Amino acid sequence: MAVGLGPLPALHPVPGFELGISSAGIKRPGRKDVVVMRCAEGSSVAGVFTLNAFCAAPVILAKQRVQGTVRYLLTNTGNANAGTGEPGLVAARRTCEKLAQLTGVDASAVLPYSTGVIGEPLPVEKIEGALQAALDDLSVDNWAAAATGIMTTDTLPKGASRQFTHDGVTITVTGISKGAGMIRPNMATMLGYIATDAKVSQSVLQDLIRDGANKSFNRITIDGDTSTNDCCMLIATGQADLPEITEAKGPLFDALKKAVFDVCMDVAQAIVRDGEGATKFVTVEVNGGGNQQECLDVGYAVAHSPLIKTALFASDPNWGRILAAVGRAGVPDLDVSKIDVFLGGVCIASQGCRATTYTEEQGSAVMAEEEITIRIELGRGDCSETIWTTDLSHEYVKINAEYRT
Amino acid sequence: MAVGLGPLPALHPVPGFELGISSAGIKRPGRKDVVVMRCAEGSSVAGVFTLNAFCAAPVILAKQRVQGTVRYLLTNTGNANAGTGEPGLVAARRTCEKLAQLTGVDASAVLPYSTGVIGEPLPVEKIEGALQAALDDLSVDNWAAAATGIMTTDTLPKGASRQFTHDGVTITVTGISKGAGMIRPNMATMLGYIATDAKVSQSVLQDLIRDGANKSFNRITIDGDTSTNDCCMLIATGQADLPEITEAKGPLFDALKKAVFDVCMDVAQAIVRDGEGATKFVTVEVNGGGNQQECLDVGYAVAHSPLIKTALFASDPNWGRILAAVGRAGVPDLDVSKIDVFLGGVCIASQGCRATTYTEEQGSAVMAEEEITIRIELGRGDCSETIWTTDLSHEYVKINAEYRT
Repeated sequence: MAVGLGPLPALHPVPGFELGISSAGIKRPGRKDVVVMRCAEGSSVAGVFTLNAFCAAPVILAKQRVQGTVRYLLTNTGNANAGTGEPGLVAARRTCEKLAQLTGVDASAVLPYSTGVIGEPLPVEKIEGALQAALDDLSVDNWAAAATGIMTTDTLPKGASRQFTHDGVTITVTGISKGAGMIRPNMATMLGYIATDAKVSQSVLQDLIRDGANKSFNRITIDGDTSTNDCCMLIATGQADLPEITEAKGPLFDALKKAVFDVCMDVAQAIVRDGEGATKFVTVEVNGGGNQQECLDVGYAVAHSPLIKTALFASDPNWGRILAAVGRAGVPDLDVSKIDVFLGGVCIASQGCRATTYTEEQGSAVMAEEEITIRIELGRGDCSETIWTTDLSHEYVKINAEYRT
Repeated sequence: MAVGLGPLPALHPVPGFELGISSAGIKRPGRKDVVVMRCAEGSSVAGVFTLNAFCAAPVILAKQRVQGTVRYLLTNTGNANAGTGEPGLVAARRTCEKLAQLTGVDASAVLPYSTGVIGEPLPVEKIEGALQAALDDLSVDNWAAAATGIMTTDTLPKGASRQFTHDGVTITVTGISKGAGMIRPNMATMLGYIATDAKVSQSVLQDLIRDGANKSFNRITIDGDTSTNDCCMLIATGQADLPEITEAKGPLFDALKKAVFDVCMDVAQAIVRDGEGATKFVTVEVNGGGNQQECLDVGYAVAHSPLIKTALFASDPNWGRILAAVGRAGVPDLDVSKIDVFLGGVCIASQGCRATTYTEEQGSAVMAEEEITIRIELGRGDCSETIWTTDLSHEYVKINAEYRT
């Protein structure tokens, strides 16, 4: 069902960042479900984490430990270790300690990530038993295998890679992600890992992943349900022979920022394209807002409206539903007579009313496409925001109604 | 598909409030689509209106005119007169002027209400042509016919009635509503009319309908989409031989308030029970909040979650989805270790984790019911809120995807 999502592109290795995959048999014997990532000594690591108050045990640990020295990221699928309370924290710590023993690092240098079913105890022994095999498998060339190893209900692996040259040195940014977005909180959901061989101070790196995630992972929505386990990590190994980036400015920073944002965007949009039951990839663009928040409020009101999403599924250019969603978004003193709405290149509503030039045939032609842009011009200011989402199909209801049966 | 919604109960006539129904042939020849309501001279009238910025032309007029003397309410179905700009306002004014001419009142004493398709011009002549027949039909006994006359996609008419006695005088409160709730903004949606023969000052009446709607109409949600045309009116004809209620206190006020709230609740819940594709009637009860708003935030996060709604449809006691929705509701400093969640009488989560006493069989038994209560105890304070909603079924997608085809 994935919309416009093909096989993995070439994922360039990142010097200083190795990945190893093994099988712990958590949900099914033989399935690849453990991924270990090793960061070269001296790497900077930054991350953004779910804001869900019910965040999972591994998220609590990873958030704490990312402040210190990080050497290993340990990911398991099949079990989210969420809603598990204090025993869940103990279990997450144990798997990290085992990996620390095997590698001779401090346990606090191991960050855990879990994705899978909520509320079941983490199978610690199974994971521990799979660690040596993952370590033996470590290689800079394993991005594609890791992209598959972190999949749960994904139908396709997701990854992106960029390279650029600075002062004759090639810098690589490669990333992978998994998840059907915020769509499935009890499959505990979105994970992203992006690495570069640039050398970047931790504070600059943290700002970079925060801003990058804000424009990508935090702008995708399938059903508005935010997971308990979302994490996105950015690792800078510093293996490239270039000076450390310690400030968010200059040509090297700008080039790196562009590459990181591009990779974030590709792997974030891949999650939407692979969204459960998705038959459309929908871009909601809000321009002319007085501030960013009102652009987001309007964008999410449209992106989350079940009525608009079912109309998208039906390829029905139901412009009344779009106007109604804009009108209820809670923008203060909204002057509807200044609002224009476009479907693709077609103006469907002008100055708050149905556009006089609009014909149903024009709207139907746009709606028949697989990728659709809804553009809303608020006429209040200069701010813009863009959100990506899917339609709401029979398949979505089927998948989520029958998920545990 | 209506859940627990039977034929209309007895709707007691309200002295001083007459209803007349006729057919303008707006969508189909012969269909009852115009309802005129006449309030006796000296009636007080109050109302609450949609907060959608794209509110329809009749809503704009009715909001203005309810401040003055009101004698007639004029409702048409089949056309919402929304998204129609200035010509829509002119059209709404014309129908009111015609009714004013026929009855010899000032046009400002006529309040218009429209419900139906968005964005098409109001068929003014058709409506004007049907007014005399509606006037000829005026009778205090026409509540049931009016409940049917204001239906659009409703599968059943909706009404409720209460009587109480004060100082030997019987007071009646009767109301009707239409709509599949906030579910269908382009069918322009929820209308409610409630009348009593008590004598009530306008300011007390306005507070009464505001508070009554807040606890009923404003606590139902099917898909979070708020209509452009929602209105709920409360009329007090003052025909009962009792002193005027000018303050919100005393036994007469208390008895009237209870009757009005009961009628509001019955007709509001009827809208949910008749919600599109509904197979469950779901009560979301949030207790122990630090304030009302956080109770509402949690309640709506649960009530709007497509994942929870599909689980309800599937009768799947998927408690992880409920916890995840509570966690992402945006309550500041939420301590999940204090949260308990109940499904019917069964504790499914205790102190933020799966309850040790909980079994899947218990949860499945509750979920198999047609009426389900999800109760969330936040453990933060003494505030409570209750919201009513439906599940999300295949039928919902089908209805809304195929609505205009």
